[in-house]
Amino acid sequence: MILNKFYVEELIKTALLEDINYIDTSADLVISEDQMSEATFLAKADGVLCGLDIALKVFQMLDDDFTAQCFKKDGDKLKKGDVIATLKGHTRLLLKGERTALNLLQHMSGVATATNHAVELIKGTNATVADTRKTLPGLRPIQKYAVTVGGGKNHRYNLSDAAMLKDNHIDAAGSITKAVELLREKIGHMVKIEVETRNLKEVEEALSANADVIMLDNMDVQTMAKAVEMNKGKALLEASGNITDETIIEVAKTGVDIISIGALTHSVKAFDISMKIK
Amino acid sequence: MILNKFYVEELIKTALLEDINYIDTSADLVISEDQMSEATFLAKADGVLCGLDIALKVFQMLDDDFTAQCFKKDGDKLKKGDVIATLKGHTRLLLKGERTALNLLQHMSGVATATNHAVELIKGTNATVADTRKTLPGLRPIQKYAVTVGGGKNHRYNLSDAAMLKDNHIDAAGSITKAVELLREKIGHMVKIEVETRNLKEVEEALSANADVIMLDNMDVQTMAKAVEMNKGKALLEASGNITDETIIEVAKTGVDIISIGALTHSVKAFDISMKIK
Amino acid sequence: MILNKFYVEELIKTALLEDINYIDTSADLVISEDQMSEATFLAKADGVLCGLDIALKVFQMLDDDFTAQCFKKDGDKLKKGDVIATLKGHTRLLLKGERTALNLLQHMSGVATATNHAVELIKGTNATVADTRKTLPGLRPIQKYAVTVGGGKNHRYNLSDAAMLKDNHIDAAGSITKAVELLREKIGHMVKIEVETRNLKEVEEALSANADVIMLDNMDVQTMAKAVEMNKGKALLEASGNITDETIIEVAKTGVDIISIGALTHSVKAFDISMKIK
Amino acid sequence: MILNKFYVEELIKTALLEDINYIDTSADLVISEDQMSEATFLAKADGVLCGLDIALKVFQMLDDDFTAQCFKKDGDKLKKGDVIATLKGHTRLLLKGERTALNLLQHMSGVATATNHAVELIKGTNATVADTRKTLPGLRPIQKYAVTVGGGKNHRYNLSDAAMLKDNHIDAAGSITKAVELLREKIGHMVKIEVETRNLKEVEEALSANADVIMLDNMDVQTMAKAVEMNKGKALLEASGNITDETIIEVAKTGVDIISIGALTHSVKAFDISMKIK
Amino acid sequence: MILNKFYVEELIKTALLEDINYIDTSADLVISEDQMSEATFLAKADGVLCGLDIALKVFQMLDDDFTAQCFKKDGDKLKKGDVIATLKGHTRLLLKGERTALNLLQHMSGVATATNHAVELIKGTNATVADTRKTLPGLRPIQKYAVTVGGGKNHRYNLSDAAMLKDNHIDAAGSITKAVELLREKIGHMVKIEVETRNLKEVEEALSANADVIMLDNMDVQTMAKAVEMNKGKALLEASGNITDETIIEVAKTGVDIISIGALTHSVKAFDISMKIK
Amino acid sequence: MILNKFYVEELIKTALLEDINYIDTSADLVISEDQMSEATFLAKADGVLCGLDIALKVFQMLDDDFTAQCFKKDGDKLKKGDVIATLKGHTRLLLKGERTALNLLQHMSGVATATNHAVELIKGTNATVADTRKTLPGLRPIQKYAVTVGGGKNHRYNLSDAAMLKDNHIDAAGSITKAVELLREKIGHMVKIEVETRNLKEVEEALSANADVIMLDNMDVQTMAKAVEMNKGKALLEASGNITDETIIEVAKTGVDIISIGALTHSVKAFDISMKIK
Repeated sequence: MILNKFYVEELIKTALLEDINYIDTSADLVISEDQMSEATFLAKADGVLCGLDIALKVFQMLDDDFTAQCFKKDGDKLKKGDVIATLKGHTRLLLKGERTALNLLQHMSGVATATNHAVELIKGTNATVADTRKTLPGLRPIQKYAVTVGGGKNHRYNLSDAAMLKDNHIDAAGSITKAVELLREKIGHMVKIEVETRNLKEVEEALSANADVIMLDNMDVQTMAKAVEMNKGKALLEASGNITDETIIEVAKTGVDIISIGALTHSVKAFDISMKIK
Repeated sequence: MILNKFYVEELIKTALLEDINYIDTSADLVISEDQMSEATFLAKADGVLCGLDIALKVFQMLDDDFTAQCFKKDGDKLKKGDVIATLKGHTRLLLKGERTALNLLQHMSGVATATNHAVELIKGTNATVADTRKTLPGLRPIQKYAVTVGGGKNHRYNLSDAAMLKDNHIDAAGSITKAVELLREKIGHMVKIEVETRNLKEVEEALSANADVIMLDNMDVQTMAKAVEMNKGKALLEASGNITDETIIEVAKTGVDIISIGALTHSVKAFDISMKIK
Repeated sequence: MILNKFYVEELIKTALLEDINYIDTSADLVISEDQMSEATFLAKADGVLCGLDIALKVFQMLDDDFTAQCFKKDGDKLKKGDVIATLKGHTRLLLKGERTALNLLQHMSGVATATNHAVELIKGTNATVADTRKTLPGLRPIQKYAVTVGGGKNHRYNLSDAAMLKDNHIDAAGSITKAVELLREKIGHMVKIEVETRNLKEVEEALSANADVIMLDNMDVQTMAKAVEMNKGKALLEASGNITDETIIEVAKTGVDIISIGALTHSVKAFDISMKIK
Repeated sequence: MILNKFYVEELIKTALLEDINYIDTSADLVISEDQMSEATFLAKADGVLCGLDIALKVFQMLDDDFTAQCFKKDGDKLKKGDVIATLKGHTRLLLKGERTALNLLQHMSGVATATNHAVELIKGTNATVADTRKTLPGLRPIQKYAVTVGGGKNHRYNLSDAAMLKDNHIDAAGSITKAVELLREKIGHMVKIEVETRNLKEVEEALSANADVIMLDNMDVQTMAKAVEMNKGKALLEASGNITDETIIEVAKTGVDIISIGALTHSVKAFDISMKIK
Repeated sequence: MILNKFYVEELIKTALLEDINYIDTSADLVISEDQMSEATFLAKADGVLCGLDIALKVFQMLDDDFTAQCFKKDGDKLKKGDVIATLKGHTRLLLKGERTALNLLQHMSGVATATNHAVELIKGTNATVADTRKTLPGLRPIQKYAVTVGGGKNHRYNLSDAAMLKDNHIDAAGSITKAVELLREKIGHMVKIEVETRNLKEVEEALSANADVIMLDNMDVQTMAKAVEMNKGKALLEASGNITDETIIEVAKTGVDIISIGALTHSVKAFDISMKIK
Repeated sequence: MILNKFYVEELIKTALLEDINYIDTSADLVISEDQMSEATFLAKADGVLCGLDIALKVFQMLDDDFTAQCFKKDGDKLKKGDVIATLKGHTRLLLKGERTALNLLQHMSGVATATNHAVELIKGTNATVADTRKTLPGLRPIQKYAVTVGGGKNHRYNLSDAAMLKDNHIDAAGSITKAVELLREKIGHMVKIEVETRNLKEVEEALSANADVIMLDNMDVQTMAKAVEMNKGKALLEASGNITDETIIEVAKTGVDIISIGALTHSVKAFDISMKIK
């Protein structure tokens, strides 16, 4: 698993403490301790799989006596009806872990599927799809990972690892030029600076100030195209705001480098996967 | 705030450690420590507000020198353009807390808005809308709370506080009757037992077994109506599975008591609220 | 183990960090790293065993190189002199884990033994013994579990999972009837409502209000008997207050359903088990 | 408060998360947010008060809008009927914090009362009463503190801060003499060494080895008296094992310095204090 | 304070739980609760102050009744004998917090002082001083912050926020060119890529591969100078390895952009500050 | 490992969450999941090894598929060029764990090496070298352990486990005699009392008061020698303040029992160990 193991383990513990509290009134009291069962993860729609290792880890963390056979892996395209994996373990275990495993698997596959949908829409252009900091509290690592599994790229992870100058920063510094200068003096050499712009005049100033990345915020397609022209490949250009299935291809064709989409992580539709215990 | 204060504080800490890490490379390095600003939370669509106290707490926890004036409160209906609250504090604070506050506010208002939409659809019937355990890891308290703010009700919180007998439990015990008996012997007197049924024969057996609640799982509307008839008000009946905007009113009209909808918490569309810093 | 594994592991970590801090000045400095020993858990009195898996887990969590053979299991009746289990591992390990393992085992067996004592006293009646929320901070899960191992039942786990209306709630709402109505409107369908009553008039009102459970608080045996008569099996009746070895059988004979006893968890006498290292 | 503030705050958070989970189904749904009430902590028996600051902190941590007037303080002797403190705050707050506050207050006062009882029994002798490591997981700080409030003294806190050589250590080293020598070479100059002895021969060897403290383990009163004679004030002598109300005065009169009693912390009888909300 | 408040508070809690455990056997038992005192932080050498807000927070977190007057702030140059701040609070508080406050203040000022020493040595050149990931576990935020206070810059914070290709990565990919290409395809647009080189051939390849930053690892001054010439300002050049007081100025004069020094954080000499309580 | 396992595991988790955050942008994206490598820990200077088990645990905690062969163990003297251990595991694992493992190993070996240097300087005298509470936040256990590995001894661990009376305590009590008396009345029998003295008059009073240990604070060698003479072996004498390579032998020769040195833990020079991956 690429994700930090300790983060994943804490997340699963949190989820299972939330979902089980102290006992499972149903499974533990009705089903005998020794009974073993098999179960299947089954795709109920078309999409991209994400989170399988994490879903299996839910069961592994609860009980050593658990095995799984995987027919798919993270990033694989799923067709409705595909068997993703078969699980084997105590019936109590399968019932206890089911909800938490599915909640994680469906959410992560939902993010990957939506990302992949956007990626497919702009195939053939130079643009890439990126996420934002519009993530759910505590879930940023799995959401950002799911975006990459869907074929997208990660924007900055947090406020420490890259700088973004918005209108408030620029106003406080006096101008884009001054804001970028001020920052360059202080930040480390591994940190990139992005400047948010709302019109071509600001794009021009950001270019003169040697911004590494320029965000074209809520611009129309014509303006973006002009920004691409002005840029001549100097900075990276990021389109942001009002990206829909209908507009994304036009935006991509302007020649921007990145199209960032908050909805990939703030408005996730769970991807339907069932777990059937035999 | 009705939600457990310590849970909320830990959630906010987690979110801010995720989002800020050790420093804010943009605000702290460009904007002077003393600068104060005002900001506004603004509704960008119609919906139900939820999470305002929590969003404000994000700023309060970071800096004592913060005040807010609220024009709306949790549960209020919002119209696009409504000013929800005005905030006042250090510019650095407003910029640091903005993303985390909005991520929480938009998610919670999204849950409340979707719940309220379902509640409105079945107004005039006896049915109530309920959530499920299909929540996001670590977010169950705020999601369950948001469901109630939207006018819905909470299903069981976790595996400890109520019992649900599914096919696997029933198979292990031998029959619905035996499974309910086995459980009654062991569980506390404050715990209700719900039985999942797939046909009228099972409904009948669950009724004889004195189940407190009977889930009608993926039944068609005609079957549900018959179940209501058979029940004669003895147990509570819960409709579950494939509830959509199109079907919910027909389901409600059958006379079931509860309609539970996983999508309220597993597929949340963020409700659009902006924060404008002046 | 029925108890949530992650709760148990955190409790053991807390106990061992408390008891060992950074080093064990005695065992680690005097006894060679490789020395192995055997030890025995021995009952020093008659009672009910509880917590054996947890006590063994103390050693397992500290050192992989540990085995145990168990002759008894949770819920078994113990006679003074019974060998409960034999343990085998590094001498250092046995000495480091001894105190923490015994502290847990003796406390949990103490709760189970006291519960079983009460259960035996009322054998043959319809009443069951239940615990309360009068538990020790951080120990509620192991205490509630120990009550069930002793043959008792768990009352509500916390303020979220069941509702109890006391005089303060009732006064605020205006009457028992109004308080129950108000609650029914808001709480989920899986949550039971219990009403605390102090006299038969209140019992009557609670019955009319369709309370699920009625607590007979500090009533004399005659009054309880009348309450049972009035109830005609409609609600569950819980006797509470001043339950002693002398009074419990008379209370049970009134026909109440539940007798709740705070002392089961708030005033625990450790059950004497020794660990002898050979 | 003498106890480490951060430990106390974490303990209270743990207790309140355990007891409230996400919402209080009773108080929050029935009682209006603004309603204020007064309450009283009342002694229901004679004893020693302990934990008042901690009990009040439960309310303070939940809500800033809380005040209390204290008529007693930790260590004060209580008579049945004594008013300990009056509290003032939101009715919801008083109901939410009540159980947790009382659980702490009754347990700590129970420890202090039992300790004080033992201290009073041996008044006039040179012996002092001490606790042991037989504490409840996570509660050692409040239990050890309560022992001092009751007039007792704390034995070593954990395995790091003092050394105790038991038979297993001594056997491994070859003899008491060798075990003490080995230890002296390695432990810091602030750490005392106690040797457990079972007969006068071992007492003699421990004396020769210059043990700081010698435990007289399960010896009869005559043997202890001889050990005191042999000791001539050189080491501190600790009586341990089978200390009861009946035997403690005889033990104390032998001239031992310390009498340690596990039951002070492992078998605590809650001291009855009620909280009456008006 | 620029550092994440919640990180700082957790660090201080950890330190105080480590240092106080459950009680302060000296201050709490000997000094009366009400006694107030004043104290002074005094520089015992010449250097750069760092960590003053954090040192004061130690006292503030323990007791509300504490005030301080600061004569210096983070980044100020200190002369031996300078009074940094005067503190006022309970004598017990001052004694309890003293050690933890000084441990933090001396360490952070030590890092800032050493950094500033290096910065001063290369004044007038274009090079800046940077830190590394050679930090102490749990202390990276305060160490990285102290480097900036001393006038240095932060290298990447961790493995997530910037990419560094070392020989092992390059060997696995086949060549510098392939390694950079592979990475560019996958990482986000805000992440810079640095390539570690050991000779001019590798520098050349890194330049062709469009590395953002090139590390000149353990090269002699002549080779570095040639690398600067080859680079023509295209990439940022970082000198690393064997930087001493004697060599740093020659390295800086080669024209490299960054000189990174592990010792700034892995070998910290505490800066001597005393706390005198009157 | 002698150190508390759970402390060590939490420390390593903290370090790896700090250093990896959510992904390793370099290793995970460039190196194939299956590639295995070997690596070597190599001493780059002469010194004392400390922390090897902990450094290896970094890798073990990240990946089960890891083995190591150790040629040295904690406490062994290292010569420049010595191979300490060879490691075998996934290349990704070795790269991810390298920095954290070395940060721990170099710091701990640095402490052990500096301690051993002091111990060697006073060989042949009766004095031992001890540490202080001048440790780094969160690192006290590994620093105190490293001092013992280098041949030194641990002073008190924290404010709970031993008492130290400084001028402020003494002033508050009125005199050394009164302060010691006050403390003896209250502290447990396992806690030693040390008195800080600045001149022979105070030494004399501390002796009369039966202090267990007397600190000779910043005294010159002649005064210390006189204190030793006055003491006649009654209390333990600890020299403290201004101990350098030049003065330590003269101090030791005065006959003091303990020489405590803050720099052992507050000013640690990392011991140079490299990790070469093949």
